Amino acid sequence: KAMASIDVPKDDYSYEYYDVQLEPTTSPEDTILQCDPTVDDRLYHTCIAAISIIVLLVLASFTRRKRLAQDCFKGIPGLLSPVNFLDHTRHKGLAVAVFGVLFCKLCVLVLAENPLPFTKNSTQEHREYWKIVSLFYYPALYYPLLACGTLHSQVGYVLGSLLSWTHFAILVWQKVDCPKTTEIYKYYSLLTSLPQIGCLAFLSFQYPLLLFKNSRGTGQTYASEDLYSSYYKDYVKEILKKKPSKNSSCTAEATLSARILESLRSYIYTPEEVFRFPLKLAISAVVSFISVYQVALLLVTFVVPTLQKVRAGVNEDIAFLLAGFNIHLSEDRAEVVKIVSYYMWCVEVCYLSSVTLSCLVTFTMLMRSMVLHRSNLKGLYRGDIYNVYNCQRNIRPSRMAVVCWMGFTSYQAALICLGLLIQTLVFFICIMFFVFLIVIPILYGQNLILFRILKTMWPFWLLLILVVVLQHVTAQFAFLKKDGGTRDLDNRNGLFLLTYLLFPVNVLAGVLLGIWRMVITALFNIVHLGRLDISLLNRGVEGFDPGYRCYAHYLKIEVSQSHPVMKAFCGVLLQSPAPEGSAEQKIRDAEEGIHLVQQEKKQSKLSNSRRARARWLLLFTLVNNPSLVASRKHFQCQSSDAFLNGTLNRASKDGSKEPEKLAA
Amino acid sequence: KAMASIDVPKDDYSYEYYDVQLEPTTSPEDTILQCDPTVDDRLYHTCIAAISIIVLLVLASFTRRKRLAQDCFKGIPGLLSPVNFLDHTRHKGLAVAVFGVLFCKLCVLVLAENPLPFTKNSTQEHREYWKIVSLFYYPALYYPLLACGTLHSQVGYVLGSLLSWTHFAILVWQKVDCPKTTEIYKYYSLLTSLPQIGCLAFLSFQYPLLLFKNSRGTGQTYASEDLYSSYYKDYVKEILKKKPSKNSSCTAEATLSARILESLRSYIYTPEEVFRFPLKLAISAVVSFISVYQVALLLVTFVVPTLQKVRAGVNEDIAFLLAGFNIHLSEDRAEVVKIVSYYMWCVEVCYLSSVTLSCLVTFTMLMRSMVLHRSNLKGLYRGDIYNVYNCQRNIRPSRMAVVCWMGFTSYQAALICLGLLIQTLVFFICIMFFVFLIVIPILYGQNLILFRILKTMWPFWLLLILVVVLQHVTAQFAFLKKDGGTRDLDNRNGLFLLTYLLFPVNVLAGVLLGIWRMVITALFNIVHLGRLDISLLNRGVEGFDPGYRCYAHYLKIEVSQSHPVMKAFCGVLLQSPAPEGSAEQKIRDAEEGIHLVQQEKKQSKLSNSRRARARWLLLFTLVNNPSLVASRKHFQCQSSDAFLNGTLNRASKDGSKEPEKLAA
Repeated sequence: KAMASIDVPKDDYSYEYYDVQLEPTTSPEDTILQCDPTVDDRLYHTCIAAISIIVLLVLASFTRRKRLAQDCFKGIPGLLSPVNFLDHTRHKGLAVAVFGVLFCKLCVLVLAENPLPFTKNSTQEHREYWKIVSLFYYPALYYPLLACGTLHSQVGYVLGSLLSWTHFAILVWQKVDCPKTTEIYKYYSLLTSLPQIGCLAFLSFQYPLLLFKNSRGTGQTYASEDLYSSYYKDYVKEILKKKPSKNSSCTAEATLSARILESLRSYIYTPEEVFRFPLKLAISAVVSFISVYQVALLLVTFVVPTLQKVRAGVNEDIAFLLAGFNIHLSEDRAEVVKIVSYYMWCVEVCYLSSVTLSCLVTFTMLMRSMVLHRSNLKGLYRGDIYNVYNCQRNIRPSRMAVVCWMGFTSYQAALICLGLLIQTLVFFICIMFFVFLIVIPILYGQNLILFRILKTMWPFWLLLILVVVLQHVTAQFAFLKKDGGTRDLDNRNGLFLLTYLLFPVNVLAGVLLGIWRMVITALFNIVHLGRLDISLLNRGVEGFDPGYRCYAHYLKIEVSQSHPVMKAFCGVLLQSPAPEGSAEQKIRDAEEGIHLVQQEKKQSKLSNSRRARARWLLLFTLVNNPSLVASRKHFQCQSSDAFLNGTLNRASKDGSKEPEKLAA
Repeated sequence: KAMASIDVPKDDYSYEYYDVQLEPTTSPEDTILQCDPTVDDRLYHTCIAAISIIVLLVLASFTRRKRLAQDCFKGIPGLLSPVNFLDHTRHKGLAVAVFGVLFCKLCVLVLAENPLPFTKNSTQEHREYWKIVSLFYYPALYYPLLACGTLHSQVGYVLGSLLSWTHFAILVWQKVDCPKTTEIYKYYSLLTSLPQIGCLAFLSFQYPLLLFKNSRGTGQTYASEDLYSSYYKDYVKEILKKKPSKNSSCTAEATLSARILESLRSYIYTPEEVFRFPLKLAISAVVSFISVYQVALLLVTFVVPTLQKVRAGVNEDIAFLLAGFNIHLSEDRAEVVKIVSYYMWCVEVCYLSSVTLSCLVTFTMLMRSMVLHRSNLKGLYRGDIYNVYNCQRNIRPSRMAVVCWMGFTSYQAALICLGLLIQTLVFFICIMFFVFLIVIPILYGQNLILFRILKTMWPFWLLLILVVVLQHVTAQFAFLKKDGGTRDLDNRNGLFLLTYLLFPVNVLAGVLLGIWRMVITALFNIVHLGRLDISLLNRGVEGFDPGYRCYAHYLKIEVSQSHPVMKAFCGVLLQSPAPEGSAEQKIRDAEEGIHLVQQEKKQSKLSNSRRARARWLLLFTLVNNPSLVASRKHFQCQSSDAFLNGTLNRASKDGSKEPEKLAA
């Protein structure tokens, strides 16, 4: 079947012989029987969808009852906020795992013949529509898994445990029942669902754990868990403690080895104590890893078994086929079979190496991305807008920013997939060239095409090398003089003469430089295609790169909505003791951020000296975080007690809405 | 001959019929007779080489006599400095024209069968060596043309006129004698030598003009013509007059139309009063223009005549040939011929459009380069190192800088050639796709492959568009609220829910974003491949782009060696009147740069107030040119009168060596 893809003219009777011989030889052990799992997919999905709806209803009613006790909010809106993506402190595992499950399902979905379990044997035209429906069905199906964890209630955790156990058990049962399928490769279906099984196992373990923890804990602080967390305070303490030593991007003083070591180290992500990734970035990272796995799996299972089958099917008739294309490898037919099999094996090895190489490159790039995400976020928190964006920008939510923020995780995953595909293709071609034009000729002393070309051109190469060396040597020893610590031009006549005489040769050297430029640029862009955090374009037109543009906008929302200093301040506001004196006084105290830095030294000093020191500390904070100044000024222009009190009350009532406004 | 390149299996007798029919039909009017010009190339080159040597010897003896009168310098070193590449003010035409002639010769040389006129009928192996020899022969041959102009003497101009007239006359005579050659295209040889004829004509006109001017002028200031020029003083006056208004690269305030207009205007080069390009850049620009002409000429003459010949040779047998490949365009054979001819014509039009488009793009890029060169040079003169290089660098000559400076013109020309080739190829493929998949299907309603694919995928496209529109609309109206002048997030529950539900669809949108990113990046890099002044890589790794690296190093030499303020200062030093008082006093006066800004107000004031004002002006100059400060400090550390006087004396004696050291 695979060999039939070689275009052999059908109307030429002389080739018919091979056609017959090259029919797919399906050996009996290769045939995969149609396997019907004990748990029918259709029945399972009908049941689980019903159960999910029931779970949601139960959750809604419970939330409603609970909320009614506090105030008259309805439960439904709370339920409809699946997860607070702007929260750095809560347990991220649940959301990450659910997104992982959803992404795995999406990968299966795109290639599946029956996207929805309810529509077996649908026609070709209808399949399109069903695929679109399934794009919305699966997020809805896995929604309760997310919702159960969001409400932070015992009931939620119990239901979440039950639901995740059901999902996990049935998936495992199905895979154990039918490990082999007729898809792409017999074990493809099993292998592709491994990350999904992993994520579901994590959920099945995590929900009971949360239930256990919650039954021991107080369970009252859930509304403002984020703001009461010590993370933000630790962050503020950290930035107040020490000044970050500025490291210029190109200091000429550092030695070469130190710079290489430094740049290598910047590719390895090491966690830092007082920094947590935003939830969106954590989800993006995990989804990216899963997408690398899925694409690599697809690439391997799609090509390697076919290549192996073809290699096994090579027999002596291949000599006739090759003779038809005027290729004579050897007189002996057995020899030809051996050579062709060996070449096929080489192709296979090249392919697997290229897949491995591109996976490694993508993983390295993901790590580097994490490092850069962190430094960008920390830079923006500090107010270093110019360093991150290379120009001054307004860090405020805008339409584009919201849209890019919504799509960031998806775009990242899609770009990783696309990047991996293209990397594999390019690396495969490069490795093939390398093996068949350099390695095999050297090993076996045949097909020395490249070497022959190089040999006939040797005077040219020698000329170029000599001219380049001549220029470097004369530049170093004849045209430069050290004069009192600085270098200056010397012997200008010689320099001008050499410049003129070498002009034609340098043009030829310039062609090589141009080819090198193309190779470097193409390789860089292919390797970095999956990374959103750097622009593939030139410094001046970075914004035209849609990937980087999306990232830049994403950062705006993340920084403006979950600035740790802001959140720390909001936490201080909410933690401030019961009103003694006027509300205004309390707010002023909180604004001055005294608690953050003085918790250890809380003493009853004179109000005046305390106020003075607090003001100084406020100033210090603002100097370290210049981006806060703008917000503060703006706040001062239109501050009104009514507005402040209103926001404060709202904030203390509704935990899912952080009162970032107050940080102004 | 052209059709024979279609691979038809030779051993299949059924195709032989077509092979016979497709033999090249050389019509009698196409045959070009071997044309022997009246002026044999071999004889001409033997004579002109001898004449050139004689001219050089005459020049050397004259220069020696002249120099001997002044001091005991020998004439040879002066002769061996063809042109001062670091001089902004002298007439650039001569050097530019000679480089143009040399580059045209190089273009002919690369493709020629007989690289050297002395070696007719050389074997294949020897041709390689002769080509290498000719790479050095031609610069040497045209050297006297350059040397005659450099010495600024009557004799030089007379000899230059004679030499350029000879070159020009013989070249024109040869081309008139034999306009048609057997190379690539009958008029290729004529067309390719047009720029060369132009450059030689310019030289033949310029040398007599210089002779005429020189005979009227004084002829004494030639030694320091560069430093006595008013250009540098004007430049310094200009920068002292007004403060350049800083224009940030991405100001959010400007309206969209204004920004578009601004960016369009930045692609058009308009000369400025007080700025002259360095000679190297002027040469690069002219050589680049010539290289665009040569490559475009080669592209057109190599392909279009062949296509036209093939189109003229299409007859009814083409129907059989196409049937052999299972392509049935029409039942009627005459109809098939018409269709095939039409398609061939379309290919021709596409090809010519792509060549035209890439030439236009390259010209635009060259103009933009000129604008950027100017702004970079002015920025570096001002000391804006960070803006130009995006990091702090040491603007001092180094080995790499000297090597890059020597090769800059050549590299620029080579990159332009390479860029034009690749642009033509890519644009040709794109235009072919556009014409054959979109324009012809729409016009004739056939081959609607692309439209059919789009039609079958319409639910998918509709879904993507709807989802993207939905996200934009909700972001604008539901998730953003204007609150006291600033926008903030609103309705977070809805935002989070939508983010979760649209995750799978956004992955598919992300694939499109990725493809768009690839297209944009590839197109940008292909269009900008010929430009050295911008890096094709990301902001952080700009240095790895060999082209940009070369440009960055080139700028170092140019700025450190021919800073206009430095040169203006050196001019002031040399112009200072005969020594009244000590030499030290004179130098101090000069250093304070008083003449530059006070020429109009030169009055005999009290020495003290004058000194004070002068110091203030010096400070002002240094503030405007911070790059001078470093040099000044360094100078102060090791200044000694002996050193200063020595340099000054040398400078006044040997005009070709500017005493830039003094500007420290």
